[in-house]
Amino acid sequence: MKHIYLIIIVLLMASPVHTDEHTVSSPGNIIQVQFKLENGVPYYNVSRFGIEIINKSALGFILRGAPDLKDGFFLKESTQSYHDETWTQLWGEKKQIRNHYNEMRVDLIENGPLSREISIVFRVYDDGLGFRYEIPEQPNIDQIKIMDELTEFALTGDHESWWIGAYQWNRFEYLYENTPLSDIDTVHTHFTMRTKDGLYLSIHEAALVNYSTMVLERIHGYTLKANLFPWADGVKVRTKTPMITPWRTIQISDDPGGLITSYLILNLNEPSKIEDTSWIDPGKYVGIWWEMHIDKSTWGSGPNHGATTENAKRYIDFAAAHGFDHVLVEGWNVGWDGDWYADGVVFDFTKPYPDFDLEGVAQYALSKGVRLMGHHETSANILNYEEQMEDAFALYEKLGVRAVKTGYVGHGTEIVWYDENGKPNHEWHHGQFMVEHHQRVVELAAKHKILLNVHEGVKDTGLRRTWPNLMTREVARGQEYNAWGGDGGNPPDHVVIIPFTRNLSGPFDYTPGIVELFFDEYRPDNRINSTLAKELALYVIIHSPLQMAADLPENYEKNLDVFQFIKDVPVDWSETKVLHASIGNYVTIVRKDQNSDDWYLGSITDENGRLLKAPLSFLDPGRKYIAAIHRDGNDADWIENPYDIIIEEKIVDCSMILTLRLATSGGQAIRFTPIND
Amino acid sequence: MKHIYLIIIVLLMASPVHTDEHTVSSPGNIIQVQFKLENGVPYYNVSRFGIEIINKSALGFILRGAPDLKDGFFLKESTQSYHDETWTQLWGEKKQIRNHYNEMRVDLIENGPLSREISIVFRVYDDGLGFRYEIPEQPNIDQIKIMDELTEFALTGDHESWWIGAYQWNRFEYLYENTPLSDIDTVHTHFTMRTKDGLYLSIHEAALVNYSTMVLERIHGYTLKANLFPWADGVKVRTKTPMITPWRTIQISDDPGGLITSYLILNLNEPSKIEDTSWIDPGKYVGIWWEMHIDKSTWGSGPNHGATTENAKRYIDFAAAHGFDHVLVEGWNVGWDGDWYADGVVFDFTKPYPDFDLEGVAQYALSKGVRLMGHHETSANILNYEEQMEDAFALYEKLGVRAVKTGYVGHGTEIVWYDENGKPNHEWHHGQFMVEHHQRVVELAAKHKILLNVHEGVKDTGLRRTWPNLMTREVARGQEYNAWGGDGGNPPDHVVIIPFTRNLSGPFDYTPGIVELFFDEYRPDNRINSTLAKELALYVIIHSPLQMAADLPENYEKNLDVFQFIKDVPVDWSETKVLHASIGNYVTIVRKDQNSDDWYLGSITDENGRLLKAPLSFLDPGRKYIAAIHRDGNDADWIENPYDIIIEEKIVDCSMILTLRLATSGGQAIRFTPIND
Repeated sequence: MKHIYLIIIVLLMASPVHTDEHTVSSPGNIIQVQFKLENGVPYYNVSRFGIEIINKSALGFILRGAPDLKDGFFLKESTQSYHDETWTQLWGEKKQIRNHYNEMRVDLIENGPLSREISIVFRVYDDGLGFRYEIPEQPNIDQIKIMDELTEFALTGDHESWWIGAYQWNRFEYLYENTPLSDIDTVHTHFTMRTKDGLYLSIHEAALVNYSTMVLERIHGYTLKANLFPWADGVKVRTKTPMITPWRTIQISDDPGGLITSYLILNLNEPSKIEDTSWIDPGKYVGIWWEMHIDKSTWGSGPNHGATTENAKRYIDFAAAHGFDHVLVEGWNVGWDGDWYADGVVFDFTKPYPDFDLEGVAQYALSKGVRLMGHHETSANILNYEEQMEDAFALYEKLGVRAVKTGYVGHGTEIVWYDENGKPNHEWHHGQFMVEHHQRVVELAAKHKILLNVHEGVKDTGLRRTWPNLMTREVARGQEYNAWGGDGGNPPDHVVIIPFTRNLSGPFDYTPGIVELFFDEYRPDNRINSTLAKELALYVIIHSPLQMAADLPENYEKNLDVFQFIKDVPVDWSETKVLHASIGNYVTIVRKDQNSDDWYLGSITDENGRLLKAPLSFLDPGRKYIAAIHRDGNDADWIENPYDIIIEEKIVDCSMILTLRLATSGGQAIRFTPIND
Repeated sequence: MKHIYLIIIVLLMASPVHTDEHTVSSPGNIIQVQFKLENGVPYYNVSRFGIEIINKSALGFILRGAPDLKDGFFLKESTQSYHDETWTQLWGEKKQIRNHYNEMRVDLIENGPLSREISIVFRVYDDGLGFRYEIPEQPNIDQIKIMDELTEFALTGDHESWWIGAYQWNRFEYLYENTPLSDIDTVHTHFTMRTKDGLYLSIHEAALVNYSTMVLERIHGYTLKANLFPWADGVKVRTKTPMITPWRTIQISDDPGGLITSYLILNLNEPSKIEDTSWIDPGKYVGIWWEMHIDKSTWGSGPNHGATTENAKRYIDFAAAHGFDHVLVEGWNVGWDGDWYADGVVFDFTKPYPDFDLEGVAQYALSKGVRLMGHHETSANILNYEEQMEDAFALYEKLGVRAVKTGYVGHGTEIVWYDENGKPNHEWHHGQFMVEHHQRVVELAAKHKILLNVHEGVKDTGLRRTWPNLMTREVARGQEYNAWGGDGGNPPDHVVIIPFTRNLSGPFDYTPGIVELFFDEYRPDNRINSTLAKELALYVIIHSPLQMAADLPENYEKNLDVFQFIKDVPVDWSETKVLHASIGNYVTIVRKDQNSDDWYLGSITDENGRLLKAPLSFLDPGRKYIAAIHRDGNDADWIENPYDIIIEEKIVDCSMILTLRLATSGGQAIRFTPIND
């Protein structure tokens, strides 16, 4: 009997904590997610091959006007299900995408009189996971004011990380930092890390529709916490039941290239809500844009006004001659004169400057088989834009415009809008106010059959799957910083970090293709910080279904040999593979044209030259291809000799290995065309 | 006039240093080596794509009994030449090896009365460089006592490095450290580094024949200096004109896998000096070895003596039944009883223990189509061995023995030998004394048509090209540490660092293939720290032309399914490619059999599980292959479940991508056999 008593006492002493644990594994048993309730408090952790990569991390919400949803829970039900489907992307970097995961849904009920219910849903893939909160309709919770989301990501070490800081004035337009995790304060996502064990992690979110943007805040040690951009009154999210949050995502790969070919974020978005997608076409454009950035002309009216009827027709003729789909014209509408980025009600979205015949230009474009690409610079005055945008999109639709570039250049940290009493409210670019504004724009654009190219917007969270007219966006430091950056422009490694950070989110309108790398006539202290071959390679590295040839027509006329690659390169791909990947050092991507059997290779490097071996095993076995190679010359060097390019053809097949010799800040761009067999 | 004076003054002030510079580039203009004489002092530096990776570094010698050779030089002549040849390796990891370099020879003459001449020869490849000193025959220098070699390697940053310390008692048998460069004191080579820019460097030497082993000493900041193991009297090298030093080598790659497939060190060795190589055959062996390490039997005589006639015949029968070429017998000769590793004159290399019928066993082996593999444990008493070794090799030759394993287990830091007066001298394992001893052994062995497998020897510097009977060696921490390491054995990452460090030097007799991972009956506190599949994969990862199946016959009999892979796997390859490489994390190597069209894949990981994509593009296009896959089971885990292995067959071709799922400390081994077509 003595023994039995002892055992009972030991059991009682060992179990002061009541823990309820439920684990779900990915289909290949690579990743394991464990949910647990410890004394009524919900936590999760993540393992990979049984080794923890996210330690015990909190879940829950702090609310205003209601008790918090963070403890006192018991488990109502935990259910698991298996999903495996392959869906077809309308356009993108890959046509057929497999959505293969195990789901665990945990339904919790609060102890006590309110008995509120909340669910947490985990979807676990072999290449990562997503989880979100759901609050169903129920008696004791309706309107919700979220004051804080408690979601943690307790990382397991001081991982090397690549990031841009949050809460800075200039939105997402910063150079990436590369520091230990412990050096960060608040960062935007994608937040990409490398562990000491050579594992790559990237935290982001999916399906941000009616919530505030999540940034990551380091709260102690290696633990990050969701941090939501607040409304002006401090509330983070105003919502009501039934509510679902965006998915919090963690992509995981042994190889950094595996992050690039992870489609987890798209998979966590809803299928298309646009039924007739026949009008949605990827395409290429030129436009009146770079000439203003290099000070050759001006957005505003005057003797150097860029957006004149005559100049637009010159671009349209050029576009028609070289097979481009759209011609962007910026600075066409009244409002650019003076201090336009100072929040005032300055822009009229339907009124062209007198020297720009909007209807005539649009008609001229159509007559040439080209379309005008519209431009809406809002100067971050959202109310002004929202008042006009119905008319503005209707006008463009009437004129046969198929795509609009929007802009949200504000003068500081905030977006200004006015409430019903005329009181100005200052809202963050990334808060719920702006997320919902962008959603209104995308739906309005869809109604008018308009494709969107959003600049200075909110980060991509895969919404293009649901709204495939949301083609591309900026939301990073683009080419124009090379025109006037003042800080030396984009250094050579910028576009070599971007594929592993910003571009994991989706298409990026970086506007590559500057072939006159110096523009001393206009801006003698600025330049493109790469070789010419690297500028070509960016068309393969940086996916954008609306892709610009950003240089001036006269510059392309002078460089027709390299321009041929820019004309040829597709913007819609059936397949994407990564051949080499080292974050911030070098990357080689190959993609297959959606509309032919051609493959394209792009390879770029930072300020160091590279010698990389590229097996051509992606080519069809048994076929010969002509490889049209655009490579750095043997003496190319981005500082002294960036124009040294060799364009040559080789016959190749899948059994060959090409040696890619990339000059300092150099690149290589190859088109592989099968020989008829 | 005032201006002209000013210019002259500026010129005089700006050129107080007389500099004579000569630059040589690699054939593809990847690497540039610059030699310069600054006020008579020789220096070199190395750039890659024009960016310095070795800053200005000193060259020269401190001598005893003669003025130093370090300054006061002027240039006699600088000549450059181009070389491109492809040679055939008798056996190895690749059959056809291209030797493609530009050479710069710099002939210097000393100012002053002695007018001594010295040359420095640089050979510059696209994947690295080698340089050496040459002192030709001349009037004023004959006998040379080198007190210090001044060669520096001034690295450009605090590179991440992988290393084992020099000047330790246990020779090269240490676990690798992974630290910043600035943490090192003296290290052995290969010394492998990763720069912040993602460039991989490895410093070593080639053709160490009659010199002292070079270690690297950090003298300040990131500057390393050659540090030679001294003789007992402090002299580093005793030599005479004409003298050439070993090549100092730096291998350089953007990808760590590129270090593995660099053949620079072999290229810097002389072609074979053995004319008739018909008797030199790679092969596999089993032997009486592991049973002593796990304490099942003893080297010394007594009731558990391993090397009995009966036991040897049992191994021979097993070898004959399963197609092995040699049977190693350790502990066969008199000397093992007592404190044998205490330098005493203990071993008799021609006298077997009474219970071991040397001639009978050798004959029995030959009658079964197998050969006895000889064993010479010297206990580091070199004089004792050298007195007997002519007879010992002659005896083995007479008995039809084709391969001998030698051993140099000493009890401390030194090798002991006795000079002509009977005075003991203590010499380092790695000093010139031992380098020259090993050279005498290899030449004697060649005379007797004996292949060598050297344990506790000097590091490999590519001499196998010149002496292809020097098959393999240990010179690293091998499998036996898992039997009795006491420190937990070899941790999971040991064999994942080895391919990028120790194995860059050449074949390694690691003795893989333990299939009973626990041996509790004999040594309950030790185990093999991997899954079973990883143990198989080591046969592809670790190249050795004499490759052991190290476990006991009875253990293989119990595991015939996995043993089949060990029986099948070749030891001589026509081609080697690296599919994945992350130092200390994971590595995947594929190799093609020298004697068939079969390919083999080995993939291993550290204590983390991995999910790796392996394109099969190395296979012949248009052919189908049977892939015999040996992979970790879905629940495999090296700690709890290491035996979980799945053996399965798939039909594959070169267009397919295999997903390799490696368990924690797991692996995968695949044989690809073409289907007749």
